[in-house]
Amino acid sequence: MNILIAPDSFKDCLSAREVASALGRGIQKILPDANCIMVPMADGGEGTVESVIDATGGRRVELKVMDPLMREVPSFYGITGDRETAVIEMAAASGIELLKEDERDPWITSTFGTGQLIKDALDQGVKKILLGIGGSATNDGGAGMARALGVKFSGKFGELPVQGGGLLGEVEQISMEGLDPRVTDTEIIVACDVDNPLAGPQGASAIYGPQKGADREMVDKLDRNLAHFALLISNHLHREVADVPGAGAAGGLGAGLMAFLDASLVKGFDMIADITGLEEKLRGADLVITGEGKMDGQTRFGKTPFGVAQLARQMGKPVIGVAGTLDEDAGVLYELGFNLLMSIQEKPGDLAWSLAHAGQLLERCGERIARLLSMKI
Amino acid sequence: MNILIAPDSFKDCLSAREVASALGRGIQKILPDANCIMVPMADGGEGTVESVIDATGGRRVELKVMDPLMREVPSFYGITGDRETAVIEMAAASGIELLKEDERDPWITSTFGTGQLIKDALDQGVKKILLGIGGSATNDGGAGMARALGVKFSGKFGELPVQGGGLLGEVEQISMEGLDPRVTDTEIIVACDVDNPLAGPQGASAIYGPQKGADREMVDKLDRNLAHFALLISNHLHREVADVPGAGAAGGLGAGLMAFLDASLVKGFDMIADITGLEEKLRGADLVITGEGKMDGQTRFGKTPFGVAQLARQMGKPVIGVAGTLDEDAGVLYELGFNLLMSIQEKPGDLAWSLAHAGQLLERCGERIARLLSMKI
Repeated sequence: MNILIAPDSFKDCLSAREVASALGRGIQKILPDANCIMVPMADGGEGTVESVIDATGGRRVELKVMDPLMREVPSFYGITGDRETAVIEMAAASGIELLKEDERDPWITSTFGTGQLIKDALDQGVKKILLGIGGSATNDGGAGMARALGVKFSGKFGELPVQGGGLLGEVEQISMEGLDPRVTDTEIIVACDVDNPLAGPQGASAIYGPQKGADREMVDKLDRNLAHFALLISNHLHREVADVPGAGAAGGLGAGLMAFLDASLVKGFDMIADITGLEEKLRGADLVITGEGKMDGQTRFGKTPFGVAQLARQMGKPVIGVAGTLDEDAGVLYELGFNLLMSIQEKPGDLAWSLAHAGQLLERCGERIARLLSMKI
Repeated sequence: MNILIAPDSFKDCLSAREVASALGRGIQKILPDANCIMVPMADGGEGTVESVIDATGGRRVELKVMDPLMREVPSFYGITGDRETAVIEMAAASGIELLKEDERDPWITSTFGTGQLIKDALDQGVKKILLGIGGSATNDGGAGMARALGVKFSGKFGELPVQGGGLLGEVEQISMEGLDPRVTDTEIIVACDVDNPLAGPQGASAIYGPQKGADREMVDKLDRNLAHFALLISNHLHREVADVPGAGAAGGLGAGLMAFLDASLVKGFDMIADITGLEEKLRGADLVITGEGKMDGQTRFGKTPFGVAQLARQMGKPVIGVAGTLDEDAGVLYELGFNLLMSIQEKPGDLAWSLAHAGQLLERCGERIARLLSMKI
């Protein structure tokens, strides 16, 4: 029996690979002959680099780049086992988690460090770059990232050291002349699960500005700046990116990646499924197990287990979803490709206990799955 | 598909019937054509009367009897749907829960009320009496029970109003002449899951005396009294009951029931299985579900789910065990007839929450069982 184990990570607890391994160990205790195929998944957010490294036998690259406030910080990205593809989490250079609460200021925070990560990946000779853009601290339309790769912005008095969303309003010229030429030969795929346009009431500034530290007045100015930036991109680069769904992701980094690097935006799940070869691996599976820390009604909106289940259903494969917490409304998932949902919990007990014992609980959940497979009814 | 649902009660939470109903509701939500056969179980202890009434369509009889300190208290017993059998929990008349902590005193506590329950059942014309004897407050060798049914005890100065284990030492004569004659025509079956002899280091007084309020000195005297009582029973009634396993159950009530009423002691599970027709119902089942509030390594020592699983295994039926708490050592049950153990828990949370939501959790566990039955792998 071929059992595909393709979970997301259990947040604050275990990586996707650890989850898959624990389930697999449990299954093989009871069914030593079962062939467990581990495909640690991710959704383009935190854990994406680790999962892709784990799934492809790749490696982690560590380096120093500029954080959102242009201070040097340790960062990282991944390279797949075949060395063809780099995988980057923008949050590792430009993420809000890198700032203290009172340092959040989208007027000046920059995606420059993300550009440095891309540049380093190009130095490694990859043909393809996968980029997850969740959790940004920035609202600069990707201008910082573009500068790190050689794009020049100038205003009334010459070149502008654009840093943050505040200075975007003063840009009058964009020059692509200095852009790193390797960008052209590199396929850049961005994992993006939001649909926001660059500017306007549903744009980057209005929707995500406040959580990045902008007050109402700053939101208005940032929004006008991004709209102005879109106009320049249209006039000088002849690209219409402002209203592409996802242009407003990560403070407009979505738009910048499309405009300056000719990147394509895809769903996070599709990106990961592609790089892990999920679809191909699903073909040979007799049973599919997926899951994440918490499964509920929200799971159907682009989360990993839902994506795995959808793909499995298309191929007529039975799917078991495993979670630490199954919320009451998780039942809707039964109409969306899941055949069985299981919680790893075995007794009443608090969250801290459960997180601390998640590995054992997952292993025993794997045993339980193997036992139900062995039941002859 | 025929699904036999034979759980014990979930202690402090739901009766066996409520547990079975909730599981059945969940199963039929997903598999409306499944034939769920509900057999609420018990182990001869608390909940036995309720389960037998539920399993046989019987009724509850309410009456007043004497508590262990000879005060009138409301009590009850059950009569099966066919009116042939009464089912009595001795704790409903002579139980330790009827006393305050500082009222516990096995020197004077009596099983008289249990005798009254038996007498009332005889008045109803039953052919058989099932008696669960867990949780007693007494150490009187069943003398109180016997007196309520007409047995006379006398000492140096005539008839003794034996009340409690204290006066047993003064008994010199036992007269069965006044014994209710209907006892002879009535089969009396006692559910007893302990093996203690009447007296000695493993006897009723030594092992259970302290928890009933006896200090070390009183334990010694009570033990001598029971040994003396056994001698009288041997001399006057020509019955050797002192060393029969279970003679020491319920403060020697086990011995008294054998000596005075010719009762047989059986395992609690066997008694309930017999009255509920469990074995016959098992024959037609495709799947058996059992369970109780907590399942762990102890479950294998005479508890209901273990008994159900053993019987089911003999017939080659698959068994699922359902519990609120699956303790870590529950795994041993997989070698003892259980094919699958499931906890009803779906997320981390405290015991109070789980108890308050046990009905819903059981229903969803039933759904989950139906879904796993529906999975085609």
